[in-house]
Amino acid sequence: MDILKQRILKDGKSLPGGILKVDNFINHQMDSVLMYQCAEELMRLFADKKITKILTVEASGIAPAVLVGYLAKAPVVFAKKATPKTMDKHYVTTVHSFTKGRDYDVLVSKEYLNAGDRVLFIDDFLACGNAALGMADLCRQAGADLVGMGFLVEKSFQGGREKIASAFPDLRVESLATVTGLGDGTIELK
Amino acid sequence: MDILKQRILKDGKSLPGGILKVDNFINHQMDSVLMYQCAEELMRLFADKKITKILTVEASGIAPAVLVGYLAKAPVVFAKKATPKTMDKHYVTTVHSFTKGRDYDVLVSKEYLNAGDRVLFIDDFLACGNAALGMADLCRQAGADLVGMGFLVEKSFQGGREKIASAFPDLRVESLATVTGLGDGTIELK
Repeated sequence: MDILKQRILKDGKSLPGGILKVDNFINHQMDSVLMYQCAEELMRLFADKKITKILTVEASGIAPAVLVGYLAKAPVVFAKKATPKTMDKHYVTTVHSFTKGRDYDVLVSKEYLNAGDRVLFIDDFLACGNAALGMADLCRQAGADLVGMGFLVEKSFQGGREKIASAFPDLRVESLATVTGLGDGTIELK
Repeated sequence: MDILKQRILKDGKSLPGGILKVDNFINHQMDSVLMYQCAEELMRLFADKKITKILTVEASGIAPAVLVGYLAKAPVVFAKKATPKTMDKHYVTTVHSFTKGRDYDVLVSKEYLNAGDRVLFIDDFLACGNAALGMADLCRQAGADLVGMGFLVEKSFQGGREKIASAFPDLRVESLATVTGLGDGTIELK
């Protein structure tokens, strides 16, 4: 998606350790108009999938997910990183965070992920694929049908796509911009 | 806003300790179409305020904020509860969470909140008003002009509105649904 790629080149920053900083327009300050356009494109890519539910994980997946959900007229569930007082029975899985360098549990209430759901997972980044595989595990526990994964930005050099393809060879995985390498202050896009 | 009030009466649950559980449609599973309608109403209420920036706090404020931001064609900044590796200089304030029963720090990068910004704070709940006052403090530190606060649901019996009015007598504070009391399984709405 050209408009997103141009923005990454304009405002993204390559930091040491394979980190792409896009907090000017994606994950701290958000360009809500650009994000709506990204949601439209993701919707187009998964239009044939008869999606009944959007799944994401807090916090930076929520904005693209709610916009895709609005366009799909589907409810959006965001997995939580802590157990709220008000949550009863839930599914839980453990995810390793690349940027934070630690494991954390993510949870979804059993009320909101069910057998029969056709789930599209939406997130801001595909990097190592750990959050994505965790969400797939939550769907498996619920007996829900995971029908696709859509990302704003993929870092193709961190192996996430291969990891997902190895576990789910038939799953459609789409990214709107693919970063193939991060150098000393440089960003390479596919 | 009638459609939101009806939904609270239909799907909200009154839990012990003054907790209103709305995780069926607001803060775990989200009804993205209802949330878009709420954003339209908030936009209408603040249409005269010449807003240049939407401010919220992760995680459950993000969805309504990004929708209001989309309608206002304004960037959305969400304050973070932990310092990301990639964040340099930031403003920080301490907020007491009523539901979690503890204090936590929230941060905004100095890059994304500035003198000259006309800021609308958006959140899912107004209860004790602590998050709202924290966001006002971040705006004060940045020299930004806080021009309004908009909430989906207000719990009027927890004093948040009074606390905000005492600190900022001229600030416009709007809520789309006001809960006046929570009884044993009952919800009273204004």
